[in-house]
Amino acid sequence: MRKILVIGAGKSTSYLIKYLLEKSNTEKLHITIGDLNVEQAKKLIGDHPKTDVIHLDVFDSESRSKAIKNADIVVSMLPARFHIEAAKDCITYKKHMVTASYVSNEMQELDTEAKANNLVFMNEIGVDPGIDHMSAMKVIDNIRDEGGKMILFESFTGGLVAPESDNNLWNYKFTWNPRNVVVAGQGGAAKFLQEDQFKYIPYHRLFRRTEFLDVDGYGRFEAYANRDSLKYQDVYGLEHVKTLYRGTMRRVGFSRAWNVFVQLGMTDDSYTIDDSANMSYRDFVNAFLPYSPTDSVELKFRHALKIDQDDIVWDKFLELDLFNPKKMVELEKATPAQILQKILMDSWTLSEEDKDMIVMYHKFGYELDGNKYQIDSTMVTLGEDQTYTAMSKTVGLPVAIATLAILNGTIKTPGVQIPISKEVYEPILEELKNHGVMFKETEVPYLGYNPLNL
Amino acid sequence: MRKILVIGAGKSTSYLIKYLLEKSNTEKLHITIGDLNVEQAKKLIGDHPKTDVIHLDVFDSESRSKAIKNADIVVSMLPARFHIEAAKDCITYKKHMVTASYVSNEMQELDTEAKANNLVFMNEIGVDPGIDHMSAMKVIDNIRDEGGKMILFESFTGGLVAPESDNNLWNYKFTWNPRNVVVAGQGGAAKFLQEDQFKYIPYHRLFRRTEFLDVDGYGRFEAYANRDSLKYQDVYGLEHVKTLYRGTMRRVGFSRAWNVFVQLGMTDDSYTIDDSANMSYRDFVNAFLPYSPTDSVELKFRHALKIDQDDIVWDKFLELDLFNPKKMVELEKATPAQILQKILMDSWTLSEEDKDMIVMYHKFGYELDGNKYQIDSTMVTLGEDQTYTAMSKTVGLPVAIATLAILNGTIKTPGVQIPISKEVYEPILEELKNHGVMFKETEVPYLGYNPLNL
Repeated sequence: MRKILVIGAGKSTSYLIKYLLEKSNTEKLHITIGDLNVEQAKKLIGDHPKTDVIHLDVFDSESRSKAIKNADIVVSMLPARFHIEAAKDCITYKKHMVTASYVSNEMQELDTEAKANNLVFMNEIGVDPGIDHMSAMKVIDNIRDEGGKMILFESFTGGLVAPESDNNLWNYKFTWNPRNVVVAGQGGAAKFLQEDQFKYIPYHRLFRRTEFLDVDGYGRFEAYANRDSLKYQDVYGLEHVKTLYRGTMRRVGFSRAWNVFVQLGMTDDSYTIDDSANMSYRDFVNAFLPYSPTDSVELKFRHALKIDQDDIVWDKFLELDLFNPKKMVELEKATPAQILQKILMDSWTLSEEDKDMIVMYHKFGYELDGNKYQIDSTMVTLGEDQTYTAMSKTVGLPVAIATLAILNGTIKTPGVQIPISKEVYEPILEELKNHGVMFKETEVPYLGYNPLNL
Repeated sequence: MRKILVIGAGKSTSYLIKYLLEKSNTEKLHITIGDLNVEQAKKLIGDHPKTDVIHLDVFDSESRSKAIKNADIVVSMLPARFHIEAAKDCITYKKHMVTASYVSNEMQELDTEAKANNLVFMNEIGVDPGIDHMSAMKVIDNIRDEGGKMILFESFTGGLVAPESDNNLWNYKFTWNPRNVVVAGQGGAAKFLQEDQFKYIPYHRLFRRTEFLDVDGYGRFEAYANRDSLKYQDVYGLEHVKTLYRGTMRRVGFSRAWNVFVQLGMTDDSYTIDDSANMSYRDFVNAFLPYSPTDSVELKFRHALKIDQDDIVWDKFLELDLFNPKKMVELEKATPAQILQKILMDSWTLSEEDKDMIVMYHKFGYELDGNKYQIDSTMVTLGEDQTYTAMSKTVGLPVAIATLAILNGTIKTPGVQIPISKEVYEPILEELKNHGVMFKETEVPYLGYNPLNL
């Protein structure tokens, strides 16, 4: 019997637990779930015999180290900042570890000790980061193995609502942390590489510099640039590419409307509004518009952004009930971003029947024998319901598959790592296919930004 | 003989020194100028007998305390962060002190000791802050003395080029620190009060929310909001006003063109561009525009901001030679703001013959016996040449006049203070008039934002 300790039984663990439970007989697994909320965790496992649920406070070192000592491998599904104490225990008690989070500096510092103890510390093995790494590296390695030279890499991911639940004018609902959506892109100019030129987009222009992406069977999407497109340049071995761009996908039209919030300053998270608790939604909007005793908030809003009243953008704001003088903000000393989040949650919260969707789109441009080629690779995963969401599937399944592969010794190279080596991505992508998470690769004419070398 | 020590003989001290020298006989003054650059300081005093120039490093405590011990009053014209050591010596040796800078927290902490030693520590007695405080408080006190109740205060200042030297399309040249102009408005949303409503303008909208101001004989100006219009609300006793707004004046059209730089991200001071040294001006502009092998930087620029080629805004950018592929940035790892500053300094540096101009505009709205009234108060000061600038006149004269008034006991209330009491502003404004720095007050119909109480 191999013992798996899963710390944290939040939103993204439903598929993770389901997968491990399904394998528990054939793979001889025993799963212990440690969470602050034991009742919530118990719902995920039902009355499955090969499981325990324990009360676990990751900051209580005694119970934490006891649980870790008892396990063969530890999966931490807590927010990234809570991993490190468990990770140190894993070094002490010589246990492998798996997380879906970005590698923190503290985690990276454990690399030498992990290697010395022959331990696999696998990170960034969710969807983004995770499936993006694996699906990209598979194609990149393949191109290189055939003698090609990478010249372009673009990668886009979106957490969206499934077509059957796509029933508002924004074609958007919150399928993950709403706060991240409201403050997306803040904190500095987006930087990327286009045909050997560094390009910079300030936050307030980000949502006006989108590009379109068509996904077979799902229609057209748009994408805006992530802040740091160059983050994995070295890790992927793309030092000499001419174009490197990472972005976030939305349905077409979202960004043009979202830009209105950005322009007015309603996404600002850097200051609080003193009297926010007693503001109506209408008051909130009006705080970003000039005073006028004679003009309505609606007209000032349309005028400020030059929105015609028959422009579909205008209907999007009406749909949010943004100008309602009776709905109250009710948040004490909140930032504009916090208030906007609350307003959006009225409209964009998933209902019980709603299903979500994860979309990923990679473009690989390369040169081979003097010619330029391009491969586009796309993946769409749909959620089943509010528990078995596409998000929890694409985050939880790779975590679960990696966990088992480490236990089975298929993944064995030790150290703090992310899933970019063949040893890791090949078995995981293969098993993901069996669960319907698969990429469709298409050869297309090279579509870089200067295909004719003008 | 009364001994005045002036520390720092920079740009804004020409009038200060001139005024004190002119008074040296009648007022029995001896002036010592302490500066790191003795030669530069000597130019300001010529061969006047009642003066010394000494080499003074404000961080060398021995020579600093010796110089301060020898004086009756100390004027520090150094940048604000360098005042505090001299201020502490002034406490130790019981000397009055005068600066044109904002009161720092450290300076404020000396208040108790200054009072205990009966010392006047006068700050913010330049132009802005300085003349703005005095000219505003004079009218505000007057309105109150007559039983009026303040309901609106707006205050605007601009450092501009004099009409006779106003010969570029921007109607602007650098008359003070260019860096402050390039980064103006950054660091958070502008906040102000309009008809009892708090209003917020994010940086990227600041230059599109201007208002117009007409000054008799000088035509029309525009103003954009300062970051914190509420700063002096309590100090001025304006707790219950409905409208409170402070702004910066430019010639009409400046802000609409400047906004293009803001929109593109060219004023950003938060990150550096790696290869900036080898960029041309054209490359720099292009870094903020999408890549295209077929479209010119000019067309991409116009398209991004929707500028017609027959729009005067477009000519303003051509005038700056912004698209020149041969002029090089030549700054190592510079921020966009630093690069933009360099480009602007090519065009906006004052030539030898150029004269500057300081413009100030206050609006005072008040209620008296159930009626609403408004007083507008304006001041324009022109520079004489590149040494006797309007900036150095409006900064240096009030400093000099205050210094003498403190020596003469006209200003005597001790403590760390700014010029908002009658004891201070009355004699100084009176003497400023004798030097041509005067306000024109006009009663106008009340022009607040809701004069009819709709």
